[in-house]
Amino acid sequence: MSVIEQATRARTAAQVLATASRKAKDAGLTAMAVALAARTPEILEANGLDVAAAREQGTPESTVDRLALSESRLAGMADGLRQIAGLPDPVGEVVRGGTLPNGLQVRQLRVPFGVVGIIYEARPNVTADAAGLTLKSGNAVLLRGSGSAARSNAAIVAVLRDALVQAGLPADAVQLVDSATRDTVKELMRARGLVDVLIPRGGASLIRTVVEESSVPVIETGVGNCHLYVDESADLDMALTILLNAKVQRPSVCNAAESLLVHAAVADTFLPKALAALREQGVTVHGSPEVAAYSADVVAATEEDWGTEYLALELSARVVPTLDEAVAHIRRYGSGHSEAIITSSLPAANRFTAQVDAAAVLVNASTRFVDGGELGFGAEIGISTQKLHARGPMGLPELTSTKYVITGEGHTRP
Amino acid sequence: MSVIEQATRARTAAQVLATASRKAKDAGLTAMAVALAARTPEILEANGLDVAAAREQGTPESTVDRLALSESRLAGMADGLRQIAGLPDPVGEVVRGGTLPNGLQVRQLRVPFGVVGIIYEARPNVTADAAGLTLKSGNAVLLRGSGSAARSNAAIVAVLRDALVQAGLPADAVQLVDSATRDTVKELMRARGLVDVLIPRGGASLIRTVVEESSVPVIETGVGNCHLYVDESADLDMALTILLNAKVQRPSVCNAAESLLVHAAVADTFLPKALAALREQGVTVHGSPEVAAYSADVVAATEEDWGTEYLALELSARVVPTLDEAVAHIRRYGSGHSEAIITSSLPAANRFTAQVDAAAVLVNASTRFVDGGELGFGAEIGISTQKLHARGPMGLPELTSTKYVITGEGHTRP
Repeated sequence: MSVIEQATRARTAAQVLATASRKAKDAGLTAMAVALAARTPEILEANGLDVAAAREQGTPESTVDRLALSESRLAGMADGLRQIAGLPDPVGEVVRGGTLPNGLQVRQLRVPFGVVGIIYEARPNVTADAAGLTLKSGNAVLLRGSGSAARSNAAIVAVLRDALVQAGLPADAVQLVDSATRDTVKELMRARGLVDVLIPRGGASLIRTVVEESSVPVIETGVGNCHLYVDESADLDMALTILLNAKVQRPSVCNAAESLLVHAAVADTFLPKALAALREQGVTVHGSPEVAAYSADVVAATEEDWGTEYLALELSARVVPTLDEAVAHIRRYGSGHSEAIITSSLPAANRFTAQVDAAAVLVNASTRFVDGGELGFGAEIGISTQKLHARGPMGLPELTSTKYVITGEGHTRP
Repeated sequence: MSVIEQATRARTAAQVLATASRKAKDAGLTAMAVALAARTPEILEANGLDVAAAREQGTPESTVDRLALSESRLAGMADGLRQIAGLPDPVGEVVRGGTLPNGLQVRQLRVPFGVVGIIYEARPNVTADAAGLTLKSGNAVLLRGSGSAARSNAAIVAVLRDALVQAGLPADAVQLVDSATRDTVKELMRARGLVDVLIPRGGASLIRTVVEESSVPVIETGVGNCHLYVDESADLDMALTILLNAKVQRPSVCNAAESLLVHAAVADTFLPKALAALREQGVTVHGSPEVAAYSADVVAATEEDWGTEYLALELSARVVPTLDEAVAHIRRYGSGHSEAIITSSLPAANRFTAQVDAAAVLVNASTRFVDGGELGFGAEIGISTQKLHARGPMGLPELTSTKYVITGEGHTRP
């Protein structure tokens, strides 16, 4: 089936979902969770074929690990769906409302987008997460996963669609788009009017392509070149603890720190300790000459390093003369994701949070907190690094639009 | 100067505006209003050249009328700026906030986008309105007006920039982009990273081009193929009054009604009266055969008519057997702007408002109320017909993004 046909079917399904009750949607989510558990063997069998094919093609083991499913990973996916069922329904929430002086009653309500397209890379758990979040928010979803996970995704989507039908919901609320050809990505990007929003999740080049070429509105997610700035007034023990947490606790994710900026006034005290601690944790530091002066282990940073999201045990580091220079550095090289300052000065905290232009700015806290789960959203469809519609971690409300409902008694405009 | 250079200057100005106080921004708006009044002669002189050139080229008089300024129109523009100064500042508003169980304090604040690009057609009053709204919301603006208004826009922007400098704000907060070539529109559309959002205002083809080709995020505005559905339970006197208001009160605007759907059960009673009243007001009706049966004046509607935004004293009209068929017709031909039902049935009102997918749905009220001024926003930058970010009339809050500010006391993620 062509993407256009799939999108047309999705629109029809979306009409049903738009007015589905919370009870009906939650029953669908629960049925999906039950089905994933009950049909674990067939999903694992399909996944086994994907994993074997990936290994045969010499795929790096870290990528294979993201592709591979297990009983416990599937149980985790099912749990995720049950958690989504427990979240409040965003649809119907009154965002603004009131009665105008002329007596017109105005309400702005949350409504589903309609059809959401998600383009993502290897991890097949995204398939169930995205289906769950879009169903709860009343949207139909077109899932365009990676070719390397095609059999796994097909098995998961078959199970989810059967569960939807059992729960009395339209199967076409969840559809898998063919991943054998890049043409399907292009078709999604041109399906304006049929697809309401596209969310690319994955590597920087995938995201860039979608952002550049799509005529369907896009929510850009993910790239996080996150900085930690240690101010002259910082509690340096706190700074070290947060630095290690932000860099080392889970280096492969977008909210991990990638770059350290240290105020010159505390460089002598802070950097020797910090560099030793980073080395102990296996972190390679790419430093400016001032940083390199403190340790022979520091690799000379190139211009490219300042803009690099390592997603690994690597860190760029620079000494800055002032807070303003730290802000200017972040403005130049940051990706607008998450930026932290460690300081005990209130004016410094205020200037940093006001002047740094990012989805999230943190004071005396690890960048790793910028996450839908940590912020209490219960679930997350991605972290937006653009300014339109949603910025930062996106939960269920971010998967909705709004509609004005205006009620009168024969009102006409004079 | 190239668009890229202008956008780079705008980014620098935007840094100043982002942290400018309400007082400073309002002083800028007042200075702009004072300057427009004080320098009326030079603006009118420039406008006179544009108007003369337009007439020489045989421009239709209705377009010339939109281009022409006068003392009273300039006074209206100045008043608009003063009104914007009186509106609350959207920047800094806390959209969500609270303390997490771990003690982290989280606030989601409204912040300016940064640089907004506005691409618009002949009317030079948009120049001052857009400059005022973007200044108040802390954004720098790149204004790409019509070539036919180039001298008028240049004169207005020169006055506004001088006023900004007098008020201690950066002149580059308001810049006019060269309108002599279409290339500047293309450059704006490719300036992702420098321009945060583009808002096209004007005809359908301009909007379609920007939506299709821009890699900068776009807010689609304006096309309004608005329907009025007269339900079987409608108060037919009310229906007629609202129909005439929605069609005739100001036919050239996007929230005017363009299409009438009448339930078959009331067609015999309603349509003869409605067609006579419409004829009296000079409205040409393009009707289905059922409608044409009631009057020899009805022109046979073509398939094209159902999708046409006339913006004139013309109306398409059809008899529908059911409310569901009215909803299906609107789903097929509507532009997602404003759709009205006239009914005294609560279930019918509820079904219509739930099932019609549009920025605004009205019950027993004229579509003409879908307007930022009417809804009490104080000012409007356009009416969004897309679902991402803003839907319906856009006021000052819609010209902002948000930023999470997260404050801890050394918090790290376990």
